[in-house]
Amino acid sequence: MIVDGVHQRTVVRDGAVVDLIDQPLLPHAFRRVRLHTVEETASAISDMIVRGAGAIGATAAAGMAQAALLGERDVLAALDAGAARLRRTRPTAQNLFYAIDAVLDAARRADVADRLEAALGAADAVIDGDAAACERIGHVGAELLADGMRVATHCNAGWLAFVDWGSALAPVYRAVRQGKRVSVWVDETRPRGQGARLTAWELEQEGVAHHVIADNALASRMRAGDVDVVITGADRIAANGDVANKIGTYAVALCARAHGIPFYVAAPASTFDPGTPDGEGIPIEERSAEEVAYTWGLDDDGVFRRVRTTRSPCRNPAFDVTPAGLVAGWITERGLFRSPGEAGWPGLTDRR
Amino acid sequence: MIVDGVHQRTVVRDGAVVDLIDQPLLPHAFRRVRLHTVEETASAISDMIVRGAGAIGATAAAGMAQAALLGERDVLAALDAGAARLRRTRPTAQNLFYAIDAVLDAARRADVADRLEAALGAADAVIDGDAAACERIGHVGAELLADGMRVATHCNAGWLAFVDWGSALAPVYRAVRQGKRVSVWVDETRPRGQGARLTAWELEQEGVAHHVIADNALASRMRAGDVDVVITGADRIAANGDVANKIGTYAVALCARAHGIPFYVAAPASTFDPGTPDGEGIPIEERSAEEVAYTWGLDDDGVFRRVRTTRSPCRNPAFDVTPAGLVAGWITERGLFRSPGEAGWPGLTDRR
Repeated sequence: MIVDGVHQRTVVRDGAVVDLIDQPLLPHAFRRVRLHTVEETASAISDMIVRGAGAIGATAAAGMAQAALLGERDVLAALDAGAARLRRTRPTAQNLFYAIDAVLDAARRADVADRLEAALGAADAVIDGDAAACERIGHVGAELLADGMRVATHCNAGWLAFVDWGSALAPVYRAVRQGKRVSVWVDETRPRGQGARLTAWELEQEGVAHHVIADNALASRMRAGDVDVVITGADRIAANGDVANKIGTYAVALCARAHGIPFYVAAPASTFDPGTPDGEGIPIEERSAEEVAYTWGLDDDGVFRRVRTTRSPCRNPAFDVTPAGLVAGWITERGLFRSPGEAGWPGLTDRR
Repeated sequence: MIVDGVHQRTVVRDGAVVDLIDQPLLPHAFRRVRLHTVEETASAISDMIVRGAGAIGATAAAGMAQAALLGERDVLAALDAGAARLRRTRPTAQNLFYAIDAVLDAARRADVADRLEAALGAADAVIDGDAAACERIGHVGAELLADGMRVATHCNAGWLAFVDWGSALAPVYRAVRQGKRVSVWVDETRPRGQGARLTAWELEQEGVAHHVIADNALASRMRAGDVDVVITGADRIAANGDVANKIGTYAVALCARAHGIPFYVAAPASTFDPGTPDGEGIPIEERSAEEVAYTWGLDDDGVFRRVRTTRSPCRNPAFDVTPAGLVAGWITERGLFRSPGEAGWPGLTDRR
């Protein structure tokens, strides 16, 4: 996507350097960071310098390439060590494991002499494939959007959550390019505020009409008839279509159902996990209680600060599971699926 | 309730002075403010130095007493002027209008010589009546709570939202005094964070086990079987039982229904508005977009600051309406009502 007139990808592999947008600084400052070691790359994932299903996967792929290039031992040993470190960063996002396995498997299948090249090629294929899949998701999902529609979304499943285009927002960006007037209700998405900070900023950069609302306000917008469709992303989709996504997605889906508003999930095939039968099997990351007790931003003097709102004990599950029965359709680069397991559903045949 | 060993009421009338807890400072500092004019009192309501249905009503009652005592013209004229100013503060809370009318009506019914005394007596009756009603709500509601129950609540309908005891939290406080182990899931309640700031602090002061969660996290707690009952307060209850309450309450009620968890509303009779047939007729205050774009608290140096999280346009409806059909029961000082209009339902006969 375009930032201040320049096309930017969220994650770029530059040889053995991983080049990322520093997302916690947004929307206050746009800055890229360059990561020179696998440890730096892994920490950037854990600390959410980069976040979002596809962007995590692409960063992990670039981290695997980094491991292969910087490793002092043989390529496979270096990749195994890199994979072990990168797997420990975030438990829920399927794209992380997909990307690590894609690079590992490519190297393992190659002859010894070709392993490095195979690993680098696989890493770049994950990164470029993410951008291509998201662009295609935009085409598929834009068919669901008519002129004048009011879309609601939760968290950030936009360009910043992937390499380019995004998943939930790709249909919006495509529809706007098709000349449709589409507006977006942006859930703030506490505790980390990815909606207010990232989705709103992306939409502003793209010139898409939008309003940020407290997460609490979406249900009353639905009741008022101000929401035509909901599209969210996914961090992992189980074989039965259950969707793990940012905490709060489940409540949005329940509220949409209560109002007869279709609730769509947009995600590339790399987010589908055929190895997990249903949502019960998806590990849900519990993050630091401090994310709930604090928030952060710019003070009136333009200084970046975090502030505390409570000293009480907090719980902070980062994701929840929306059962497949609440999902009107899964928007993927392979087309729109109206029920899990339809022909072409990203399933067991994709499993590496 | 007790703060650091001292019994404190949220609102105290001290002659012509209105003495309040400065709620935006909580939980970081406990301080009382003394308001010397009706204008100061009205501003304290608008600016949410005091908030919460009953506390707003009690403050308005004390403000009316203040108007009567400070007025240079006759008492009725002073009360009319005070009423006009106080009515312009917040549109949604029924207790505000109830309290103003109670004082006005008492003065109007009295002989000229007794008007001041009648007004002061009515104001004090509103304030003391609020505390007594809430204490009774605690007894009524505690019957619904068994040992070990996990209660969820939204916003602050505790002691700080009333003169004493609270509405939604009064049953919890009573149950704990009865020896029941009751714990509370505290919704943060964006945008103003009354759950994280006020409810959590109250519960800590009372020694009640609790966790603060992002508003987004409650539905997944319900799905996990960790919530036995929901109790919220109300800002206004229409004749048909529809409930206007803090934005987000409606989503909580929808999610509770989806999980078969009873959703109760606790409120004194003064919150019931027999003059409004249903929720459609309740005016919903839209507050400043800055409440969504900013939050505030203590930084790491202990300095009180506000920080901005987005520069995008925001919408900020402060309340929503939960239809009566989602409410398992209305907990009042007159008992528990299982359906609107049952014998004793605060109805037209109460109308002044």
